Amino acid sequence: MAVRYYWEDLAPGSVRELGTVSPSGEDIKEFAEQFDPQPFHLDEHAGKRSMFGGLCASGWHTCALAMRLTVDNFLRESASMGSPGLESLRWLKPVYPGDVLKLQHTILESRPMRRRPDVGMVRSRWEMFNQHGDKVLEMEGYGMFGRRQPATPEEIAKYEAERGKSSS
Amino acid sequence: MAVRYYWEDLAPGSVRELGTVSPSGEDIKEFAEQFDPQPFHLDEHAGKRSMFGGLCASGWHTCALAMRLTVDNFLRESASMGSPGLESLRWLKPVYPGDVLKLQHTILESRPMRRRPDVGMVRSRWEMFNQHGDKVLEMEGYGMFGRRQPATPEEIAKYEAERGKSSS
Repeated sequence: MAVRYYWEDLAPGSVRELGTVSPSGEDIKEFAEQFDPQPFHLDEHAGKRSMFGGLCASGWHTCALAMRLTVDNFLRESASMGSPGLESLRWLKPVYPGDVLKLQHTILESRPMRRRPDVGMVRSRWEMFNQHGDKVLEMEGYGMFGRRQPATPEEIAKYEAERGKSSS
Repeated sequence: MAVRYYWEDLAPGSVRELGTVSPSGEDIKEFAEQFDPQPFHLDEHAGKRSMFGGLCASGWHTCALAMRLTVDNFLRESASMGSPGLESLRWLKPVYPGDVLKLQHTILESRPMRRRPDVGMVRSRWEMFNQHGDKVLEMEGYGMFGRRQPATPEEIAKYEAERGKSSS
């Protein structure tokens, strides 16, 4: 697939809707059997007796579903070079069978990389909402993307001078 | 299963080995097909051509494997009440087929909860190492656990006074 989004195309402040997904009870149990076999992720009755009030998805399942939407509706058309990680991940509400989850992605910050002038770093926020408008998941983290044009030494020096000023 | 670990049993500084897991190439591809269909997680040849140098696991797959070890070797015997989230997640090295991943869990901090005296909060670090001793994953985050004895108002006041002092 042709690359549509290079680092230069990911403007801070830009917001993308990355689609919706709706896990079934079977999906929730199947993930939990493999990766998170706690009773409230495996069984309706155990879910009802738990603090969640019903069968609900593993938090890692919710993250994996958000990743799938991100790949399908954004990364697949981008020059993505992977991610070093996240600086926060919050499971805010339980996800129940049949919930319709909508993912929104916001670019927070963008910067050149001194050691890899052909790659740029982006800091993003992912927010997933259910059909009631409740936020169920929020993550902030980093992604690396290939650039259309490599960073010049002047660009890197300018960025570092600005960052130095704002943090002092 | 009988509960062995209540909040009181999770001493700051305590370290637990939570076992090992070794994902196969098939496991890696199966997870990726469902949740992270990027070429380097799906196909050996695409992996070789990528910045990872070979087929490698989705970072979310690595997290899910760490969760499975945590459930099997710790949470299952605990009074776990779920997690509000993580404050950091770092994918430090790629995970390749057949890697033998060892998980270590350290309790960093422990505190009572004002609004839920029957529950306590714990902050933990998870570190996953491969067979070469390289750290592939590090996470820090929170977990809630049922208490043997509810917090008294005095305990909560003492904790808050100490926290107030240390943060001022």
